[in-house]
Amino acid sequence: MRSPLIAPRLLAHHHHHHYRPITAIQRRFISAYGYEQAKALVLPNLGEPKDVLRLHGHSISPPTGDAVTIRFLASPINPADINQIQGVYPTKPTWTTSLGTPENIAVGGNEGVAEVISKGSGVKGLEKGDWVIMKKQGFGTWRTHAQTTASELVKIDTEKREGLKAEQVGTVSVNPCTAYRMLKDFVELKSGEDWFMQNGANSGVGRAAIQLGKLWGYKSINVVRKRESGHEDLVRDLKSLGADVVITDEEMRSKGFRDQLKEFTSGGREKVKLALNCVGGPLVNDMAKHLAPGSPVVTYGAMSKQPVQLPMGLLIFKDINFHGFWVSRWADKNPQQKKACVDEILDLTKQGKFQDIPMDPVTWNYDTKQDELVNAVQGTLDGFRSGKGIFVFGNT
Amino acid sequence: MRSPLIAPRLLAHHHHHHYRPITAIQRRFISAYGYEQAKALVLPNLGEPKDVLRLHGHSISPPTGDAVTIRFLASPINPADINQIQGVYPTKPTWTTSLGTPENIAVGGNEGVAEVISKGSGVKGLEKGDWVIMKKQGFGTWRTHAQTTASELVKIDTEKREGLKAEQVGTVSVNPCTAYRMLKDFVELKSGEDWFMQNGANSGVGRAAIQLGKLWGYKSINVVRKRESGHEDLVRDLKSLGADVVITDEEMRSKGFRDQLKEFTSGGREKVKLALNCVGGPLVNDMAKHLAPGSPVVTYGAMSKQPVQLPMGLLIFKDINFHGFWVSRWADKNPQQKKACVDEILDLTKQGKFQDIPMDPVTWNYDTKQDELVNAVQGTLDGFRSGKGIFVFGNT
Repeated sequence: MRSPLIAPRLLAHHHHHHYRPITAIQRRFISAYGYEQAKALVLPNLGEPKDVLRLHGHSISPPTGDAVTIRFLASPINPADINQIQGVYPTKPTWTTSLGTPENIAVGGNEGVAEVISKGSGVKGLEKGDWVIMKKQGFGTWRTHAQTTASELVKIDTEKREGLKAEQVGTVSVNPCTAYRMLKDFVELKSGEDWFMQNGANSGVGRAAIQLGKLWGYKSINVVRKRESGHEDLVRDLKSLGADVVITDEEMRSKGFRDQLKEFTSGGREKVKLALNCVGGPLVNDMAKHLAPGSPVVTYGAMSKQPVQLPMGLLIFKDINFHGFWVSRWADKNPQQKKACVDEILDLTKQGKFQDIPMDPVTWNYDTKQDELVNAVQGTLDGFRSGKGIFVFGNT
Repeated sequence: MRSPLIAPRLLAHHHHHHYRPITAIQRRFISAYGYEQAKALVLPNLGEPKDVLRLHGHSISPPTGDAVTIRFLASPINPADINQIQGVYPTKPTWTTSLGTPENIAVGGNEGVAEVISKGSGVKGLEKGDWVIMKKQGFGTWRTHAQTTASELVKIDTEKREGLKAEQVGTVSVNPCTAYRMLKDFVELKSGEDWFMQNGANSGVGRAAIQLGKLWGYKSINVVRKRESGHEDLVRDLKSLGADVVITDEEMRSKGFRDQLKEFTSGGREKVKLALNCVGGPLVNDMAKHLAPGSPVVTYGAMSKQPVQLPMGLLIFKDINFHGFWVSRWADKNPQQKKACVDEILDLTKQGKFQDIPMDPVTWNYDTKQDELVNAVQGTLDGFRSGKGIFVFGNT
């Protein structure tokens, strides 16, 4: 019996050098037989996104057996996706020839939401029209369509996503779940009493932590870099999300901060019992020394690219302990918890209690040019975007 | 009613400038009324041991009420005691005027074993002749006698210490208990299968960890500095205690070490799941990168005085987590566990299954001169001693 996975190879065409436009008539013809004309932002090897990414077209045959064909709705561009392409991320992209190339390629992107458009007769638990997210990293989500199996997908219950946009559903599993687990898994904070402290408070995770903290009664001290312009707007913005205190790293290093902190924490009766770090460098010590003895510092990013220097006294005598959190590892180990976390965030989003970081969507239609898509990725890397970059799929 | 604590002040004499020798006749006279003529190595302020320590003589009145008078048998000179005198330790010595000085002084030393020589009528649970160790740090153990209450002491059951020398009993609560808890409290090692790794393996804690690990079936990789002479003896010595592997820090940094480690660990099937650190600096990273994902690194000392630099990848992606262990904090929080740990180590010592680091005893008699005692402390600081310095009290 011929495997359905062999078919795309036969129909594959390479966009880069041998681009042959497929006309609307051809496309309808192919669709008539259940074939999907797919496009994917792929890389043949690791490197700078602008150098290695290209748009690759291929066909997907009708699903048989346990195969499922999905059409992507929204796929964010996360910093980790870019690091992965550059080769500076511990997990590599998934190399494959199953998209009809003679050599291995990989599809960029790890997070996204898609819709089931057809399935083989052996597929259980998924129906046409269902929305799904990826169970694990490495799926390759920067593409219009993919064929996979139900075991690689997590179904979003229809009532959970009703009224929500794909952009909202497609961005829950990384940043909000990171914030959620870091606030819950390292120390038990007492509602209405305990504080946490975080740097990079304006990041996607930072904003999620502020909001979840507020909902759970955990007060927050939020450290941001001083901005030349728009600083007051940022402070107002984070406070509107629920930040109790917003300060710059300079302010935290100033002599008066210890007294200020005492004021914030009801004369020191309340304690700061957790620190979240995505910056690294000396800022981590500046934070750690204001924590209550025995508190954890959880690192989930390293924006400054500087290592953390731990003075031994903090470790030994103040019992400050240092941990890392990597949402991919957590999700791979705890698929049930991931689904629960996603569902809870979606509920909160529907209730208007949670909002993601402002987005900067890039529409990906059937005729969107390679340059536009690659620039969207490179622009995220270069920090030129005004919000979180996300591919929103239109007419694909 | 006159408090017995007032009496010593009236009888105090200062050794340093106003030394008046007490004749044997005077001494017997005082003893006839139950007064003890005590001497203590004290400091009037923080500083270098040789500059601040002096021998102070004072009298201790007969105990009444809940007071207990003890005579010290053995009191080690630990590095932490010296750091405390220098003022570079987080807990300060206990300042007091109760030893008959007009200004505050403190008695050096934190660990030791003493014998109850008399007690007030209200004392329960202690009898004359009982051996006791200190419940908490800060007692001041470099002295011939002290008056205190039962609540500050931990009784050593007579059958636990039968056949043991005071030096063996007086050195259990710091180094062996540190090793014991670090091997047990941060990760569950599987007997006969899992490994731990430690630097400073020749220290008191290091030698204790080797022996306890061996008893419990935890295999050990022991990192030591390369010695110009006597290196082979040291390796043989640690192996005789139970060390599976002894290497130098250079050997661990060499390219071939990863392959070597694989050989040690049955082709990599066994894992190194814990690291103990008392050195600091880059050596910690050299160790951490050979640990299994999720493993803890526990720091209990900082001999190199260099901070640990944490590359973020180890924290985030390898989930290596960094903790401190301070035996004083642990003991203050867990007095029952401390007693259990001490009892277990004493049992093992009696069975010949545990031996402390080689000792370099300094006999402290009634007529031992100040210089001899101060030099013993300073010598420990300067690393001139051949073993662990310990005051062993003779005719006091």
